[in-house]
This record gives sequence, structure tokens and C-alpha cells, in this order.
Amino acid sequence: MRPVYLDNNATTHVDVDVLQAMLPFFTDQFGNASSMHDIGTAAGVVMKAARRQLQALVGAKFDHEIIFTSGGTESDNTAILSGLDVMPDRTEIVTSAVEHPAVLSLCAHLEKTRGVKVHRIPVDHHGRLDLNAYGKTLTPRVAIVSIMWANNETGTIFPVAQLAEMAKRVGALFHTDAVQAVGRLPMDLKATAIDMLSLSSHKLHGPKGIGALYVRRGVPFSSLIKGGHQERDRRAGTENTPGIVGLGKAAELALGCMDDETTRVKLLRDRLEEGLLERIPEAFVTGDPLARLPNTANIAFDSIDGEAIQSLLNRDGIACSSGSACTSGFLERSHVLEAMSIRRARGAVRFSFSRYNCEEDVDRVFEVLPGIVEKLRERFPKSSKRAKC
Amino acid sequence: MRPVYLDNNATTHVDVDVLQAMLPFFTDQFGNASSMHDIGTAAGVVMKAARRQLQALVGAKFDHEIIFTSGGTESDNTAILSGLDVMPDRTEIVTSAVEHPAVLSLCAHLEKTRGVKVHRIPVDHHGRLDLNAYGKTLTPRVAIVSIMWANNETGTIFPVAQLAEMAKRVGALFHTDAVQAVGRLPMDLKATAIDMLSLSSHKLHGPKGIGALYVRRGVPFSSLIKGGHQERDRRAGTENTPGIVGLGKAAELALGCMDDETTRVKLLRDRLEEGLLERIPEAFVTGDPLARLPNTANIAFDSIDGEAIQSLLNRDGIACSSGSACTSGFLERSHVLEAMSIRRARGAVRFSFSRYNCEEDVDRVFEVLPGIVEKLRERFPKSSKRAKC
Repeated sequence: MRPVYLDNNATTHVDVDVLQAMLPFFTDQFGNASSMHDIGTAAGVVMKAARRQLQALVGAKFDHEIIFTSGGTESDNTAILSGLDVMPDRTEIVTSAVEHPAVLSLCAHLEKTRGVKVHRIPVDHHGRLDLNAYGKTLTPRVAIVSIMWANNETGTIFPVAQLAEMAKRVGALFHTDAVQAVGRLPMDLKATAIDMLSLSSHKLHGPKGIGALYVRRGVPFSSLIKGGHQERDRRAGTENTPGIVGLGKAAELALGCMDDETTRVKLLRDRLEEGLLERIPEAFVTGDPLARLPNTANIAFDSIDGEAIQSLLNRDGIACSSGSACTSGFLERSHVLEAMSIRRARGAVRFSFSRYNCEEDVDRVFEVLPGIVEKLRERFPKSSKRAKC
Repeated sequence: MRPVYLDNNATTHVDVDVLQAMLPFFTDQFGNASSMHDIGTAAGVVMKAARRQLQALVGAKFDHEIIFTSGGTESDNTAILSGLDVMPDRTEIVTSAVEHPAVLSLCAHLEKTRGVKVHRIPVDHHGRLDLNAYGKTLTPRVAIVSIMWANNETGTIFPVAQLAEMAKRVGALFHTDAVQAVGRLPMDLKATAIDMLSLSSHKLHGPKGIGALYVRRGVPFSSLIKGGHQERDRRAGTENTPGIVGLGKAAELALGCMDDETTRVKLLRDRLEEGLLERIPEAFVTGDPLARLPNTANIAFDSIDGEAIQSLLNRDGIACSSGSACTSGFLERSHVLEAMSIRRARGAVRFSFSRYNCEEDVDRVFEVLPGIVEKLRERFPKSSKRAKC
């Protein structure tokens, strides 16, 4: 049976057209873009084209506002550290309680090692940011605000344009981790006050190991990785030309089909959610009912661990994610659900779609998930203690 | 006519076997190694294999001493910043005057912004490190020494094992940028006192955008990029699985043919050097005559700019490099030749071989280069002023 891949917020496969676009740059057009000979300068030309493809996707005013990095995490780290560097008189960061570890881990590190004060804005039980609390933390002491465009676990969309305007009023920089939003939501950065935006290629059917940081023209900037003059002195290191070409092509494809595919994917997602709530008692959808990514369904099942469900779905050939982040073999409780004070559920299951999913994928979940939940609830009735993980 | 590529110290093409090894990881085995389902965990397995391939190439004791990064520059930055972080009571760095910008630019930045004292050990006219000066700078104030294994312009090899032992005596960490040496020279790190080593995939027929940092077990370490728990908390960000697989395969191939190919490449390089010195008056080879990379020929031609020669060779389909680093459209005088006090030459031409070069490539240089030098010397006789660049 064909495996069902519903974990596109974790990563996506590389689109076959993207791979085709990349291939010549491994073997034939393999030059170092810093070299002066023809093989080298050819690499510079294709990077320009990729920059324009990304510019179009995010609605940047200039292509040189795009800096290629090794991925979303590097972009997030670069933006926040740059914000602190270029604002030496300001020592506070504002972020949310539900950011990706790429932001939260760095902030915790800065708090501990550099005495930076970090404000983590809370969210309500739908994952919506507390705008009142946000407004109160904004003072001229804030160097940079870093709040995600859309949450990776629940898909909740934050009003980043509005948040950026509020940050501007106190002279703070505004960065958004848009790793989950780019390619899934229309964007027009030039019409906003957003200063910096992180994106990742492998979330939009591009290759892994490449991403970008948008830095609005005129925004002061300090590079994270020092060395050669690549990327206008903003990111040193030989450019990953195949990766850059792949990211550019992925951006072009995402933009080209965004309207149609967003609608189709949303219908699939809605059908999954409605179908599961009908079939499974005591299940509920997490996240903002009004502002959510069209591709993300995060569903909690009362009294069962998300990990247990995810593991059994995997045995049935369905790849999805539990609410927990898990790396290096240990499980952590989802900080997102914790922040949402969702105490009824012990984790949740995230189904995340891409334009490559179809009706049959949803049907397959309908076939197996109700049985899995029933079995687990029989095995671990409500009164039983939660297993340690 | 087939282009002649003699710029393998700048970058190499991806070996066809390396590309074949990578391909499945773009489209089929595309999982995120942090995911708990089968598609994700499969990625973890292949990363382990790649780590072992690299372990074998550099002679590390443990595979987990290899941390995957986005390339040599990131590895260099990580190592030096880590050294300062884990040695908070020490505030000095020792490096050489002829390091890659990935080391020198970072050091200059740290000097300016963090008050770190940087010792840049000079070299003689053969590019050999001043060991006496090196010994004198080693005090308990030194947090980290960073000296390259082999120079990218001249190929001069530094006695890193000896330098590392000297550094140990004062309790300093020792890092080496071995980007040009890995895959070209045999290595057995476990038999040395080297604490950290940077390497880059695209210098050894692997893909761009991936590299590694060797960190000896037990050496205190602080990560540069914070976020998820990838690479045992030492480098956050979704792992670039195709890149990692490619780097592993490239390492395996380099190790498998190192003895034979090193000999063959050295013969080609020696033939080029001898043939050019015979054919062209007032030309000389730079670098240490006794300890040089087998693939690198850096030749200076009295009274002519290296850039002019490189540019004309390019028109004849021969890709090589001038002694100058050039990015973003501006030329810089080679800091390596400056440090060697080579005043007779106005830059040099670097020919760097790989195992894919052959006799015909050398013959082609013999055919065109003498004429180019003659023409340029006629056009710009010795008395004429150096053109501004």
C-alpha cells in the first residue's frame, strides 16, 4: 500500500521539477560563484534568478533583500542576533511562548549568557496571541520582536503586519519566522513594516540545507557567519548553487499554484477534521478557528498520548506528527499545547498536507484512526496514570 | 574544445557516484530525521553511515566526533567562537597571517567588537610559519589556536600536529581549517592533539552547502546555531540529508583512491610547474618546496598581474584562479602573497588539480600560457605603472 505522508510541516519531498532544475549545478555548472572564470560567473547568474523567484513569492521590493542561508534555523538565529548587535542600547527581545525552538532556544541562551531580557507573550486556549500583553511589553528598550507568521503545530496565524506596525512605534526591529507560512499564504512584504523574515526551502518542496532571510533594504544588519564577501557581506561561505536554484524553482512553483492549491488543500484538511470529529468522540481541533494555515490539522484526543497514536498510524503506513517535538531519542511535552493550557489532551496529532495529498489519503486516515483511538482508550482508560515518557 | 578545469581549490564538480547516492534522498527517502515515523527514522540511519565515512577519512576515534554543518566557513566560525565561549577566562586567539577569510574576518570582527587579542603568526617567503613567533605567543591567555592544515593559495602545509601539541602545553584549544587538506592528504586525527577540524564537501567532489566540524570527544563545546536537538545539540536545524549522504560518499571515494590519485595528481602538477618554468622566463613557484599539497601549483610571473593572465586563460577555455580573492565584483590583493613578502610578482596564478584532470589539461596550458605571458609583457613592459584595479 502507498504510504500516506501527512507530515508536510516537518518536511516535504523535493518536487521533481525542482530536482531537475538543480541537477546541472552538481556536475556541469558546478562553479564557485566567487570565481572569475566563466564556470564561476555562470553560478552568479542563476543565483540572481533564484533571488527574483523568492522576491516574487514573498512580495519583496528588491531581489537583494533576499539573503541565502542554510535554512530556517540559521535565518532565525541570524535575525535575532543581528537585531541585538545593531541596537546596542536596547537589551530586550519580545517573542511568543509558542515559537519554534530556533527562536526560543536562542532566546533562552541569550537570557542566560548575555543578560538579555526576553518577553514571551502568552497565547489563549486557541493559540491566539495576547495583544494586550504584547502592547505592554513594547518599550524603547526592545531591540527586536520575533514572532512567527504561523505556528508549526497548530497552524495558528499571527497578525504579523499589525504586530510589526506596533513594534515600529517604539523603534524596535520586527522579525518573523515564516517557515510554515511561505508558499502557503500569499505575502506582500513591501506593503508591511516587517523588517526581517525567515524561510526554509524544505517546507515548500525544495531541497534541505537551504533557506533565506529577507532583510528589508535600509535595515541595519550584522552577519552571523563571517568570512568571504558572499551575499553582499551578509552571509559568508561558498554559495550552495544547486540548493539556491532548487529553492528558487520551488518558490516559483509554489507561487504559480498557490490560489488553486490552497483551496484544494484546505478542503482536504477540513474534510479530515470534520470526518474525524464525527467518527471519534472526545476529539477536538486545536488552534485558531478563524486564522489557521490551510494545510494544518492538529487534533487532540482526550486522555490519549499523541505519541501513541502517531506510532500506531505509522505502523499502518500513515506518517504524521505528534504534538511533541522529539529529537535525539527523547520526548518532550509540546510547549505549544502547554502554552495554550490544553490540559484535557495529553498531546495531539498533527496532520499537515501539501499539494501532493489527495482524497485517498484522508480516506485512509478515516479507515484506521478511529480503531486506533478506541483500542488505546480501552488499553489506557481515563483513570489510569499517564505513562512516563 | 573541452574546457580545462584547474580550479579545484575553489570548488570541484560533484562525482557522479556521489550524485547517484544523493538522489533518493530528495524524492523518496526525504524524511526529517527528527520525525518519529519510518520516513523520518530512515534519514537518521543514513546520517550515521555518512558520519562513519567521514570518521574513516580523517581518522577520528568516534563517529559522533563529526558534526555536520553547512560548510567550511560555518565550521571555522563555530570552532573559534566555541573556543572563546568555553574558555571565558582566556581572551586571546592565535592564528596565521595566511588563513582563509573565514578565520581572518571573524578574528578581525572579534578584535573590534569583543576586545579579543589576535596574534597573526607571520610566514616567510616560502609561506612557512614562523615557529619561533608561534611559540612566543602561546601563553595561558590563549583560548584557541586556529591554523590551517594547508594553504588554499600556495598549498603550503603547516605542521599542525606539532602546532597542536605546543598549544596543549598552555592549555589552549587547537583548531585547524583543513578544508584544502581533507581528501588530499592522509589523516589520523586520533593520533594527534588536534581538538577541532573544519572540512568542506565541495572541495572533494561532494555537493556544496554541506561540511563538517570534527570535535574531539571530551572537548568542551558551545554551538553557534541554536534551536532543535539535532547533532546532539551541537548544530540545530533540519539535517541536510542528501548533502550529508553526498559528503559521506565523497569521503569514501576520496579515501579509496587517495594513494594512487595523490601520486598521479602530483605528477601532473609537477609536470605543469616544470614545463611552465622551462617555457616562461621570470616565472617562479610560490609556497613551501618541501611541504605542499600535491594538487596545487601557484605560479607568479614577474611584472604581470595574475588577474590578467587568469582572464586570458579563461578566454581560451582554461579555468584557474588568480592569487587574489575576488567576490562581489571587486579585486583584492592576495593577503597570502603579501604575507610572504613576494614583491616581485603582482599576484600569481593558481592551478589546482583533482583526480579528474589528465595530461591533456597540462598540455593545453603549455599551448596557450607562454603566448599570453609574452603578449602581456609586451603590452605592459616593466617600467609601466601598475593599473589600478
